[in-house]
Order: sequence, then structure tokens, then C-alpha cells
Amino acid sequence: MNKQQLFEQILKKQSFLCVGLDTDIAKIPEHLLDEEDPVYTFNKSIIDATAPYCIAYKPNLAFYEAQGLKGWLAFERTVAYIRQRYPDQFIIADAKRGDIGNTSEMYAQTFFETVKVDAVTVSPYMGADSVQPFLKYHAKWVVLLALTSNPGSNDFQMTEDARGERLFEKVLRISKNWATEEQMMYVIGATQGQMFENVRKIVPNHFLLVPGIGAQGGSLEEVCRYGMNDTCGLLVNSSRAIIYADHSEEFADAARDKARETQAEMKIMLDKYLK
Amino acid sequence: MNKQQLFEQILKKQSFLCVGLDTDIAKIPEHLLDEEDPVYTFNKSIIDATAPYCIAYKPNLAFYEAQGLKGWLAFERTVAYIRQRYPDQFIIADAKRGDIGNTSEMYAQTFFETVKVDAVTVSPYMGADSVQPFLKYHAKWVVLLALTSNPGSNDFQMTEDARGERLFEKVLRISKNWATEEQMMYVIGATQGQMFENVRKIVPNHFLLVPGIGAQGGSLEEVCRYGMNDTCGLLVNSSRAIIYADHSEEFADAARDKARETQAEMKIMLDKYLK
Repeated sequence: MNKQQLFEQILKKQSFLCVGLDTDIAKIPEHLLDEEDPVYTFNKSIIDATAPYCIAYKPNLAFYEAQGLKGWLAFERTVAYIRQRYPDQFIIADAKRGDIGNTSEMYAQTFFETVKVDAVTVSPYMGADSVQPFLKYHAKWVVLLALTSNPGSNDFQMTEDARGERLFEKVLRISKNWATEEQMMYVIGATQGQMFENVRKIVPNHFLLVPGIGAQGGSLEEVCRYGMNDTCGLLVNSSRAIIYADHSEEFADAARDKARETQAEMKIMLDKYLK
Repeated sequence: MNKQQLFEQILKKQSFLCVGLDTDIAKIPEHLLDEEDPVYTFNKSIIDATAPYCIAYKPNLAFYEAQGLKGWLAFERTVAYIRQRYPDQFIIADAKRGDIGNTSEMYAQTFFETVKVDAVTVSPYMGADSVQPFLKYHAKWVVLLALTSNPGSNDFQMTEDARGERLFEKVLRISKNWATEEQMMYVIGATQGQMFENVRKIVPNHFLLVPGIGAQGGSLEEVCRYGMNDTCGLLVNSSRAIIYADHSEEFADAARDKARETQAEMKIMLDKYLK
């Protein structure tokens, strides 16, 4: 999926919601545990309930890997289900990979050939040649970590160099030359809303994947005020607030309500801030 | 396995070799492709051939994930095989993970509970709370990326802050307070041999996992001269130079010869530089 197609989905659905599938077997409703593949069954229900209100899904690999083989199977099945049933959804493998060139090539193969998602999150720490293998695939995206939403983002990402440039700013400035806006997005955490102004000075046109709304406390309004551009330029992720909105047998209805409510807020933001 | 036990293995075998199991199905001998699980079959032969000459194995997750489910099965089987057959070997999952706290918890569960390795490589970019979940397990290790062996290590790891401290040095200085030397090691690439002197000023006693000898061109002598301490403090990894030493049916013999040769060089280094 290219940038224009992504923007068209945003306009069509009046939503820039990405639903994070951080599916923890310890947190899904108990009645699903009798299913042959509880995680996949849970995901299917969540996806069917939320698909009208979102434009992207982001399975978080950690939650699948933790279940070993069964987890990988649930991950592959989930991606295949979205692909087949909702082909207009953008799928991001939240994997935070990145390694020397020959190893990143294998990770790129994993996510773009074996499992066939649209995008994968990648860590910038190892530099250009750790990211480039992911950029060889047509219409596939790297979502590079820049400024994350967790407390530890202060440990290294905010380090200033001699000219006063912070590490996350350097990551944006250097890496935007590695690919066009058609292949690169950035993770910018919503918990640091005021930073979106700085980010947009460096990457005015890129899409940003924004975690941290909801459970982590970020403000949607602030993110949109400072971060939205003329193709929206935002994919705002919500995981726990939607998928664990309820733990009863009505979990999917609760997820639908929460997604619909988020989409309604996003429509207001688009009316207000889309340039 | 704790630090003392690791050092005892080094003394006993006169080796600090870690064999990297970067097993690429496209590179293993053709006659193995008829096997039910070619990657696992290859690994078993490599492990049996090299175990007397090394003290650690490092499966590189990318190469397993690229095969999807089959790959995860081969990874799990490989770890189980080493555990059962060679219980004194230290096993490092080279996964370069790291995410917000609740997600890193899941990765820690993957590698320390589901698959049961001794150590996992982790990226420092997201800071303290992305690493801490891995440190909750007794006698399990984090191998934190500091200075890697690839060209891209220059992009961000060498960035100097206002006081002249480089990012990889800051990573060492800050993160050494997150755990003791019994739970933390660092990746320091062999391709930057002269840097080991700087590294040892910050972390004199930690173990360092050193990639980049062999295919990537680093010098063992230089690494040992500047990096060895009184418990050796080095795990030097070699992947391709050993496991792909030969592509015929005699691949395991060639791997054995190469591992034995490397161990002999390491014995000389221990005689010369062990403080």
C-alpha cells in the first residue's frame, strides 16, 4: 500500500486509528481458552468488530513469540485473516528489529515474504545498513523508532550532541535520506505531545506512527494540533484501551464501541486540523 | 549460568569461542534439504562437531523466523538439543529485542521461560524500562548492544554529546547501573579493536560479546590485547567462518577443524593476556 492509498483510506473512513493487537493469552476472556487457537479466535473477533473504524492493525510480535510455536501460528493466521477479509487494512508487524545487513535481510524476508505485512517497526541503533534491507521491497514500509512513548525514551533518545541536536532528531534527519516518504514512517510517542512541533520541522511530510494514546496517557488533540499535515500524516495506535475494553463474553462489542468512539474523535480532529 | 561458571568453562576448554548459528536454509549443504527439518539437522551436526572447542552457541533469530513456523520449530529444537546434550554450553538468543516494559516482559518470557536460553541480545535505544524486564530472571543475562560491528555503527553510536561522550559510551555508563556484572554483558564489535581500551575504562569487569571476527574482518589479537580481563571477559563469536567452512557432505568436519583452529588461537591469547 502506498502513501496515497493510505491517505484515501483515512479520508474514506474518517479515521487514522491503528488497532494494536497486543494479544496476551493471560488477558483474553476465559471462555476463549477452550478454543483450539484462543489468540487467533480473539483477534478475529476484535478485527471483525473494529475494521469499520480503523485503517491499520499492528500485531505486537512479543505477545505471539511468548507462546512459542503456537504464538507464531496465531500471528501468521491473524495476518492472513486481515489480508483476505479486509484487504484495505494496513498491517504493521511491531517487531522492533534491526541487525547487521545480512541478518536484517532475513528479518525483511520474514515480514515481507513469509508473513506478508505492509510495514515493520525497526530500531535505528545499528544505523543505515541495518535498515536498508527492509527498504528493498516495493510498497513496503519501515517504521523507524525515533521518539518512543516509554519513560526510558529519556535515557538515550534525548541526549544532545555538541550542536544541541537530540539523538531522536538526528535519527530523523539522517534516516530521512535512506528512503522516500513512500517507504519510511517514524514512531513518535504521544506522551511527548509538544515534541511533534520539533518533529514536523525535520520530517514535515512523513507518516508518524503514534503510540501512547490511552493506557500510556497521551493526548489525541495535542498530537493532532502539532502533528497533522496535509495527508493526515498520523497513524494513532491504541492497543489495550480497545482490545481489553471488556473481559466478558461481550468483549468484541466493547472493543467496537471503543473503536467507534475513537474514530468519532478522529473525525473531529480531521475536520479541525487536516491542512 | 553465572559469571564464575562461565569463566570455569573458559579455563577448562581454553576457549572463549561462541559459535553463531546463523543457519540459512539457502546456504546449508544440498543433501540436507531432503531431511524433515534441514536446519535442525544441520545445527545438530555443527553442534556435535564444535562443542569441544566452544563454550557458547548463539542462534540468530532472524534466520529462523525467516522460515516462519518451521523456523521457530528448528530454533526451539536446537536450543533443547544443546540444553540436553551439552548442558555446560551457554546459549545466547541473538534477537536484538527491546520495547516498552509490558512488551519486553513478553520477550523475556519468550526467551527465558518458553525457550529457556541463558541470555538474549537487547537494543538500548528505548532505555531502562525496555531492558529491566529481562533482568528479573535469576542467572539469566542481557547482552546489550553498545558498539556493533557493522558500518552503520558510525551513524548514531559514535555521536558525541556536549561533553565529548559518545553514545555507545553513554550506553555503557548508564546501563551498568541497571544490573550487576552477573546479569549484563555488552556487544562490542571486533572491527573496532582500538575501542576496547575505551570500553574497558567504563566496564572493566563485564563480559563482552564480540562479533566481527572472521567474515567481518576483526582481529582476535587486538581484541584480546585491549579487551581481556582477569575472568577473560570475552566471548568471541564466529558464525559464517565456522558453520559454512565447507558446503559438501563433510561440512561438519570442516566446521570442527575451523573451531579447533580458533580454539588453539584462543588458548595462545589466554596464555598471553589473561590477567
